[in-house]
Amino acid sequence: MEVSRPAVYPVAVPPPITDPPARLRMKDYQGMPGTMVGLALRLSQLGFAVLSFSIMVSTPDFVQVTAFCYLVAATILQTCWSFVLAVVDVYALLVQRSLHHALVVGLFAVGDGVTSTLTFAAACATAGITVLIDNDLDQCAHNNCGKFEAAAAMGFLSWVMATPSFLLTFWLLATR
Amino acid sequence: MEVSRPAVYPVAVPPPITDPPARLRMKDYQGMPGTMVGLALRLSQLGFAVLSFSIMVSTPDFVQVTAFCYLVAATILQTCWSFVLAVVDVYALLVQRSLHHALVVGLFAVGDGVTSTLTFAAACATAGITVLIDNDLDQCAHNNCGKFEAAAAMGFLSWVMATPSFLLTFWLLATR
Repeated sequence: MEVSRPAVYPVAVPPPITDPPARLRMKDYQGMPGTMVGLALRLSQLGFAVLSFSIMVSTPDFVQVTAFCYLVAATILQTCWSFVLAVVDVYALLVQRSLHHALVVGLFAVGDGVTSTLTFAAACATAGITVLIDNDLDQCAHNNCGKFEAAAAMGFLSWVMATPSFLLTFWLLATR
Repeated sequence: MEVSRPAVYPVAVPPPITDPPARLRMKDYQGMPGTMVGLALRLSQLGFAVLSFSIMVSTPDFVQVTAFCYLVAATILQTCWSFVLAVVDVYALLVQRSLHHALVVGLFAVGDGVTSTLTFAAACATAGITVLIDNDLDQCAHNNCGKFEAAAAMGFLSWVMATPSFLLTFWLLATR
């Protein structure tokens, strides 16, 4: 007759669980700070911001319109920010460092959010005025509508490239 | 003389660990969908969007400017979206449901991002044209500058109230 008995043999006592499980970390998605796609996004933002700035300052009368001056200022800020972040990305890639420090990621997210919002606002204001001059008032004969439109378009493209950087950095901040 | 020995006594064998630990869930921060602050944000977006729309359509010549028509369209979209989400928030609060389903949160995040971006773009274009008419051309005697400025300001306030909703919903999407 078989009788159930407790197991009586040497068993390593499992260590007591005292610490909560460590927070899960997400992997580095391409596009986040310190990745190749992240660097490509920075260089694209930088390039389009420089193009927008160059086209706008090449028009002789941009200083007469507040929104056009604002676009110039916003693209200068976007250029500086994207350049600094591109340098940080190159450094991170060269020394194989992961940019996951809370303060650094928070700073990147805030900076990306602010600069991309300012660039988008300037591009929208420029586009609004260009459409007013071109479609609504039909005054393109006396204005550089083509250049204004091109500057606004480059500003929008800079924002389009900055938005994934912001969203991915914000995602990293939320999940780190 | 003491000699170390293995423990020989009945010990319950720990169950083998087969499943990975469940993903950590963040708590419901106030401002997220289905919270009281979230509902207050929705009602604020809704209110400012309705104000912006009402002020703009009260001007007789807004249809002559594309950007002003775009502000009217964007505020209508923002009003509809915020109203639907406010109803969802009220339902969630009444039945004590947590709105954490992946598809629902993803839909909220995309919708918030799109509507707030469109409202912001329209407010920026309106502000750019208003500053052009007021400061750069000094043509306020023939235009409703005050109303255009007020409509732009209400549009900006609607966006200011929509941004926390978007950021918190996106945060919830990242951490759920």
